[in-house]
Amino acid sequence: MVDNVTSVNLEKLVSLCKRRGFIFQSSEIYGGLASTWDYGPLGVELKRNLKESWWRTIVWSRDDMVGLDSAILMHPTTWAASGHLQSFSDPLVECKDCHQRWREDQLDKPCCPDCNGNLTDSRNFNLMFKTFMGPVEEAASTVYLRPETAQGIFVNFNNVVSTTRKKLPFGIAQIGKAFRNEITTGNFIFRTREFEMMEIEYFVKPGDDEDQHQRWIDLFVNWYVSIGLNKDRIRVRVHDTNELSHYSKATHDIEYHFPWGWGEIQGIANRTDYDLKAHSKASGESLTYYDADTNEHITPYVIEPSAGVDRAVMALLVDSYTEEDAPTASGGSETRTLLKLNHNLAPVKVAILPLSRKENVSSMARDIHHMLRVSNAINGFIQYDDRQSIGRRYRRQDEIGTPLCITVDFESLEDDSVTIRDRDTMKQERVAIKDLSSKLGNRLMIQH
Amino acid sequence: MVDNVTSVNLEKLVSLCKRRGFIFQSSEIYGGLASTWDYGPLGVELKRNLKESWWRTIVWSRDDMVGLDSAILMHPTTWAASGHLQSFSDPLVECKDCHQRWREDQLDKPCCPDCNGNLTDSRNFNLMFKTFMGPVEEAASTVYLRPETAQGIFVNFNNVVSTTRKKLPFGIAQIGKAFRNEITTGNFIFRTREFEMMEIEYFVKPGDDEDQHQRWIDLFVNWYVSIGLNKDRIRVRVHDTNELSHYSKATHDIEYHFPWGWGEIQGIANRTDYDLKAHSKASGESLTYYDADTNEHITPYVIEPSAGVDRAVMALLVDSYTEEDAPTASGGSETRTLLKLNHNLAPVKVAILPLSRKENVSSMARDIHHMLRVSNAINGFIQYDDRQSIGRRYRRQDEIGTPLCITVDFESLEDDSVTIRDRDTMKQERVAIKDLSSKLGNRLMIQH
Repeated sequence: MVDNVTSVNLEKLVSLCKRRGFIFQSSEIYGGLASTWDYGPLGVELKRNLKESWWRTIVWSRDDMVGLDSAILMHPTTWAASGHLQSFSDPLVECKDCHQRWREDQLDKPCCPDCNGNLTDSRNFNLMFKTFMGPVEEAASTVYLRPETAQGIFVNFNNVVSTTRKKLPFGIAQIGKAFRNEITTGNFIFRTREFEMMEIEYFVKPGDDEDQHQRWIDLFVNWYVSIGLNKDRIRVRVHDTNELSHYSKATHDIEYHFPWGWGEIQGIANRTDYDLKAHSKASGESLTYYDADTNEHITPYVIEPSAGVDRAVMALLVDSYTEEDAPTASGGSETRTLLKLNHNLAPVKVAILPLSRKENVSSMARDIHHMLRVSNAINGFIQYDDRQSIGRRYRRQDEIGTPLCITVDFESLEDDSVTIRDRDTMKQERVAIKDLSSKLGNRLMIQH
Repeated sequence: MVDNVTSVNLEKLVSLCKRRGFIFQSSEIYGGLASTWDYGPLGVELKRNLKESWWRTIVWSRDDMVGLDSAILMHPTTWAASGHLQSFSDPLVECKDCHQRWREDQLDKPCCPDCNGNLTDSRNFNLMFKTFMGPVEEAASTVYLRPETAQGIFVNFNNVVSTTRKKLPFGIAQIGKAFRNEITTGNFIFRTREFEMMEIEYFVKPGDDEDQHQRWIDLFVNWYVSIGLNKDRIRVRVHDTNELSHYSKATHDIEYHFPWGWGEIQGIANRTDYDLKAHSKASGESLTYYDADTNEHITPYVIEPSAGVDRAVMALLVDSYTEEDAPTASGGSETRTLLKLNHNLAPVKVAILPLSRKENVSSMARDIHHMLRVSNAINGFIQYDDRQSIGRRYRRQDEIGTPLCITVDFESLEDDSVTIRDRDTMKQERVAIKDLSSKLGNRLMIQH
């Protein structure tokens, strides 16, 4: 499937992300904090655009979905009822000599990888971060940072049903942070302890669950292609019975082919009625749905498409990173680096590049910049750059994935027109300034 | 200033928020978790619209601002350097009899408010939540949930300057969660332990700081009015010297008149060069700006406009809640409850209300619903409601602040037209379906 695709070098990508302001190591001036990352001025726009695209597709353009935004800190009984306190753990061993700790299931020999020392028996290490709420540090005040946003949806099931009066099948969507105290992290923003999720709990009649499961798998494979991922680098992998989570009847992962191999970007699980029943039992509240057709109260089954925002960003960066030969002004050729990001997702939509810093050209370019910033034609971030040669400026914009560059030149002063240059084809088009706003709007919306 | 404005009853508002799906008590089925709240299907849309409006105004429509999204978990030295580990605390006393704990500065008599018992001497209680990162719970692995997003901006100062090459004055904007382990919480979503912030750190030349401080105060007073708050319920309060934070030279609060009195919705502090210098000292990294005009490296001063998202939502709900007399169909009058939310912020932009559930009317209404959902004319959530009388449906939409309702009737089948009904004036306008999308777009954009 991926034979014909050359993988980007991960180090080059991480370097571009830091150099151009996509992603920085968190707390870098203090040596960083293991596997936490900050999104810089371009990264935050890319991530915002991605989440916005998801919300439009999943919530606004459907009539069977509503959104939710539940708190990160939840009542601790939630995690007892959901099974996370008991089961959300990794097997941990400690070296008796150097006291380093390791995940037993990731060791390929029964002694310490660092010093060859003997290891203790394994114990289960819970992956939830804990903290203390209120002015006392004791067991009674322990709360957890949620390891998934899903439980905030389940405990609000009755609230959502009674306020929206949705009929089955319907779903609740949520975007938010989650935290897992992973023993092993890595691969840039792929596996981190703090991350953002885009989750859906889709409630269906028992019996409809397998069909609905397949529909969500198909929908999301198509969605990832629609936002720009190469379909040859996407596959669906079915979980073996022995790797299923404690709540799952069946889980399919949508995987992307990263530079280090296949990695999950979205899980789509059939959680059955596990969670609603578990919370009903623990809370004493009936979490059921009244089916007017059969005059019965039923516990719906749940299909859960659960995606990592940071992993999708990572896949988009890997997938859009391109190096190609391009002609130089002097007739030679050079390597051009570009991010072929979908127009909807590109962090900078348009760059304004005056060909001269002379006052009259500069002033016209600034006026155009101002006009576009306050207009609604461009739904995003616009950059102004007048430093160095136009060739270098094009390369900088290519490298951050800006779809369209506008150059303002001395002729512009005469003909009230500017040139639009396309990132991918490098073709140029002369456009009257009075038509610029609608022209840009149309060209940027091509990939809607 | 507020004599002519009647305050909404807080209980009524909380009840509306729960009943209609704006805000639910978090983990309600487990008895709730003190002062944490979940945003329901309407609340999440209102909050998203508010944040989107802020980002457009602050980042996209200006050329001196860029965004950032830094991690909640930061290197712990950050909080030592910033002064939070030493100074971010409240004075706590404990009752020697019943062992309840209280904030000393909020007691009006020197004995326990619950049992009149004697109190201990006060000690400083740090408001940062702490947790442990990695597989060992010990001091060395202690990290904190950030109590403000600001420090994520300061520690990235060099990264942002080198990747964006911004010149002074410029600012960095960030929206994200923060956590404070408050001893006393309350007033619905006004004071909670988990909350969302919209923060700006605006870097200026020392000496320009007082002017710039005033500009941001003026800008945000106007912004709150522009998103719909009554200017008679807004005031600016200057902090006394003895209430200034440890980093501040001057702080002005923008306050809103809530049902319980004036409360801060935004602080605008002059943080001077305190933070950049403190992090320079602690990290050994020079956090300075090279001023090409004077050929000097300077440490900028910082103006910090810092707003609470949840407090702005609270102010919007309080401000837009309206009860008024309205005529009934039978010629009498009744009390109409409505949220007069700004069109940009309303959680539901448009509701489609077929006047009959007969197949032909229903089918036309569903087609219109589908057409509007996938069109770009309406930038938001659209509802379909065909339950109960049209009068009741209008009341439901008024109560959640939907600016425009579309009714589809039997005549629509003949004339291919529908009726648009305005929330505030209740006036109706007949519109051809072919013009509907652009008509709605125009009417919703009036308040852009």
